Amino acid sequence: MTNCIIAQSGGPTSVINSSVVGLYNANKELKAYNKVFAGLNGIEGILNGNIIDLTSYSDEEINKFRFTPSSGLGSCRYKMKDLDESTEEYDKLLDILKANDIKAFFYVGGNDSMDTTAKLSRYAKETGIDITFIGIPKTIDNDLMYTDHTPGFGSAAQFIANSVLETYLDSSVYTNNGIFILETMGRDTGWLAAAGALAQMNGKSVADFIYLPERAFDIEIFLKDVTDKFKEQNQVYIVVSEGIKDKKGKFISEIQADANDKFGHAQLGGVGNYLKKLIINAGITKRVKSLELGVLQRCAMHCSSEIDLKEAYEAGYEALKYSLTGKCGYMVTIERTSNEPYETSYSLIEADKVANNIKYFPTDWINDKGNHIEPQALKYLLPLISPLPEFKVFNK
Amino acid sequence: MTNCIIAQSGGPTSVINSSVVGLYNANKELKAYNKVFAGLNGIEGILNGNIIDLTSYSDEEINKFRFTPSSGLGSCRYKMKDLDESTEEYDKLLDILKANDIKAFFYVGGNDSMDTTAKLSRYAKETGIDITFIGIPKTIDNDLMYTDHTPGFGSAAQFIANSVLETYLDSSVYTNNGIFILETMGRDTGWLAAAGALAQMNGKSVADFIYLPERAFDIEIFLKDVTDKFKEQNQVYIVVSEGIKDKKGKFISEIQADANDKFGHAQLGGVGNYLKKLIINAGITKRVKSLELGVLQRCAMHCSSEIDLKEAYEAGYEALKYSLTGKCGYMVTIERTSNEPYETSYSLIEADKVANNIKYFPTDWINDKGNHIEPQALKYLLPLISPLPEFKVFNK
Repeated sequence: MTNCIIAQSGGPTSVINSSVVGLYNANKELKAYNKVFAGLNGIEGILNGNIIDLTSYSDEEINKFRFTPSSGLGSCRYKMKDLDESTEEYDKLLDILKANDIKAFFYVGGNDSMDTTAKLSRYAKETGIDITFIGIPKTIDNDLMYTDHTPGFGSAAQFIANSVLETYLDSSVYTNNGIFILETMGRDTGWLAAAGALAQMNGKSVADFIYLPERAFDIEIFLKDVTDKFKEQNQVYIVVSEGIKDKKGKFISEIQADANDKFGHAQLGGVGNYLKKLIINAGITKRVKSLELGVLQRCAMHCSSEIDLKEAYEAGYEALKYSLTGKCGYMVTIERTSNEPYETSYSLIEADKVANNIKYFPTDWINDKGNHIEPQALKYLLPLISPLPEFKVFNK
Repeated sequence: MTNCIIAQSGGPTSVINSSVVGLYNANKELKAYNKVFAGLNGIEGILNGNIIDLTSYSDEEINKFRFTPSSGLGSCRYKMKDLDESTEEYDKLLDILKANDIKAFFYVGGNDSMDTTAKLSRYAKETGIDITFIGIPKTIDNDLMYTDHTPGFGSAAQFIANSVLETYLDSSVYTNNGIFILETMGRDTGWLAAAGALAQMNGKSVADFIYLPERAFDIEIFLKDVTDKFKEQNQVYIVVSEGIKDKKGKFISEIQADANDKFGHAQLGGVGNYLKKLIINAGITKRVKSLELGVLQRCAMHCSSEIDLKEAYEAGYEALKYSLTGKCGYMVTIERTSNEPYETSYSLIEADKVANNIKYFPTDWINDKGNHIEPQALKYLLPLISPLPEFKVFNK
């Protein structure tokens, strides 16, 4: 009997380990492979021979791992060379797989990982090596094409929605409340910021404004909108994606960085703080708070989505099953077969179609003013998270 | 039959509404007062006649309110004038209470609210008015004297501990990890930062360093410690209180603000970002992330402590009972009668003893180097939160 191997790549999520355990348990049930190996720190680790045998661990350890956030097999940012540039790494990797009698390789990750999966698959085929390569989708950004959504997104959306609701209440307790800005991740796409709209009181989004990278951000219009809303309600709640850009495509956060001192601003982020400064500077109010959720979005297992945990597990489970059908160079996808009730099925798509592609938040799901999302977006988002608590306050 | 009134003041917590419902339910059981009124937005609202009748709401609404974070009766930052300065507001307030046939007034809050409770109590006694004033403790800062701990702290500690554990895992997935800084609230005291030590893997705190305001912060020593630890582990995890000060007592965050531009830095916070800049500037590594938990610490009901919810409820319940004993001008306290198993009882302390006092983190609970806490502090903290999940990773 032959073996298989699984590895993780790219940024962590709360549920990425569930995919590994889904695959592990599928193998336990189907007895498809003798051993389930894991490559630590992705491709980079495998190239260094950093391989463990998951089947040597107890069920208790595997079950703890299932509900552990972050990439518990370690991750890497390693991108393999193009095949026409050099095949050295490919040969080395395939030699390691052959030496371990591995017939199936599973890579859990986003676009770059699907690129790697596609390249490895192509090279194995070209060189007549019978190893199956299958990708398992993972990213909180929800920006992979050809899948309804990605495992990892639901839990990030859950944490964002809960946090928006809670911080909205926290920022509403005084008679003279200020302006609250919550900054989400999402360098290229607005899926995460849009999840802020799921936070509702009395059937209405508590966020007054939601800004996504898919629509050019205009500072003048922003300040006008905030001024008007603040006059109307004496309080404004804003959700903003870290990746909002001006009409020339320049990150708003970079405009800030340019104006700031030169060190410590290398990483994206801080657009919330920049909007805060703009609001204070415009004299709207001095009571402005900005909160950047940061990496908590991708690791807050304490606030994960039940459906996301289930689907991440199932994506791994299905990947193992698909590896037995002879398909190679594909990624598992989730298809939404029904929205009410929410039902899904699993399918496959060529990994190279997913690689180097980005699924943007649909522009017709953004309102005309470009400062909130449309109801059909909420319909899409709602089944991906567990129900939010119903809160009751008396001061509103 | 007479009535009673309850109001909230100061910063919100996740469990402050549980205290109101504890009192409300005690009255339902004991039938002590006819109506339970609530003053919206604290003393300020009551002075404006902003009073509702909680007994007019359904049990379902009251129960939702019980598990709603933030001050659901609204809050205020209002401080009454000293009695020898003016009694006008006192007279007005007592007139409003008398007009509503109110015989007991409950104020849920921190030091300032206990000051108000004490002053009102004194003035009522002096003017021969038979109204009981009782304080119910509330603050995430855990800095009230004469009580083992304060309702609200446990839930903030819970969120901090969970977040430290999760972000530690998130920041550990690569072979070349960087430095992670988590900034907690705590302007004067280090209780919240200390809670970061509850995050453990394999019986050891994941935080390498924890910095509290109770110990002078030395930037040179800090950079030396971080340099050494980073060389040793290629990764460092730091928890820092927003309120750390240098040996002259100046907030480290103010040193940053002075060096920065002049607007947008009015509020305390951002010391994590300052430490990040120092680390990058010192050339230790450029891979530094800083996360400020901000108001999520005081409103993350989705990650509240079960014991904290229970005690907040009971503190309200006991307050109502105490109001029937004729005691006036007191605050409810929690006494820890046993640590293993954890057992508590409730008592009273004069509110003016609590007012304008601060309970610091004990200096002998801080290690000699001033960069972590001692085991006895963990013994104190542990029973105040629900058990953290046991995680398992393979890449460490």
